[in-house]
Amino acid sequence: MSKAIERLHVSPRMSQIVIVNGFVYLAGQVPDVVNASVSEQTYDILNRIDALLADAGVDKTYLVSATIWLTDPKHFAAFNAVWEAWIPEGQPPTRACVQSQLMKPGCDVEIAVIALADSRS
Amino acid sequence: MSKAIERLHVSPRMSQIVIVNGFVYLAGQVPDVVNASVSEQTYDILNRIDALLADAGVDKTYLVSATIWLTDPKHFAAFNAVWEAWIPEGQPPTRACVQSQLMKPGCDVEIAVIALADSRS
Amino acid sequence: MSKAIERLHVSPRMSQIVIVNGFVYLAGQVPDVVNASVSEQTYDILNRIDALLADAGVDKTYLVSATIWLTDPKHFAAFNAVWEAWIPEGQPPTRACVQSQLMKPGCDVEIAVIALADSRS
Repeated sequence: MSKAIERLHVSPRMSQIVIVNGFVYLAGQVPDVVNASVSEQTYDILNRIDALLADAGVDKTYLVSATIWLTDPKHFAAFNAVWEAWIPEGQPPTRACVQSQLMKPGCDVEIAVIALADSRS
Repeated sequence: MSKAIERLHVSPRMSQIVIVNGFVYLAGQVPDVVNASVSEQTYDILNRIDALLADAGVDKTYLVSATIWLTDPKHFAAFNAVWEAWIPEGQPPTRACVQSQLMKPGCDVEIAVIALADSRS
Repeated sequence: MSKAIERLHVSPRMSQIVIVNGFVYLAGQVPDVVNASVSEQTYDILNRIDALLADAGVDKTYLVSATIWLTDPKHFAAFNAVWEAWIPEGQPPTRACVQSQLMKPGCDVEIAVIALADSRS
């Protein structure tokens, strides 16, 4: 059953990576560093996404779509500065960025992305 | 036009199921039971998702991705207990879980999932 | 690298359109008109979505899935009235509609959609 689905970094709660039908889905990523600045939290998350994309055999030039949650609209500018520096030139995903409280205490940023899978995989 | 899209349980507002390009998309599911415990609400939603996946010809082992909204982070533990008992061993989807108020009064949990479609369909 | 991804309306922050693997992803759309009624904001967003889908070579009959954020559940009825008038008969996407504050001041509605790409593209 469902042999066409590859799951990586699997816990009882979620897979961090699911590869299926030519797409890579990542779980919503939150920072390891908490009670840090929004810039530091964003760097940390984007590093995690880089590492997970590498585990899936791709990189940030394969990004298709991102959903971003910030705990407060006041974090928008600090978030965007780090985000835009990270985006490969001319190759940003679509994105939606909205406000939500997050489940992990002390975190202000969460990002979930979808990427294109490597065509050889 | 768009003949490649199969829509099931269609109302003027939304389709509960859309099957396209090898994926099954389900609408965000809220519980029928309101003003119930978070555990009861979560059971109810997961039963609805099981039924909708069956209507789409698949089951929870085909899950790719889940987006979960809770009205309050305090519901996280109760939600996760029911969620983890429901997830088939070793086959969880990716997920993102954030806080939002919900549109249906008295509801504390909403879940939207994407699954792999059956390859024969 | 990632040549299979077509990106349209690209800024340093995001692509408004990404076409990949037979799907069209649109960025979360907010209204140009701010401090307007929820009905006016919704019309404006749906017009933007119509225009972006046309740029991607499809139309609203190709919609697969929609995620909708409202700043307050009290906007739900006004939003739905405009939404349901816009949906092509019998061809609605799946949807999830939840509450979030939005990043653009004076906006009460944001919508992100996924559509089927035209099979000839």
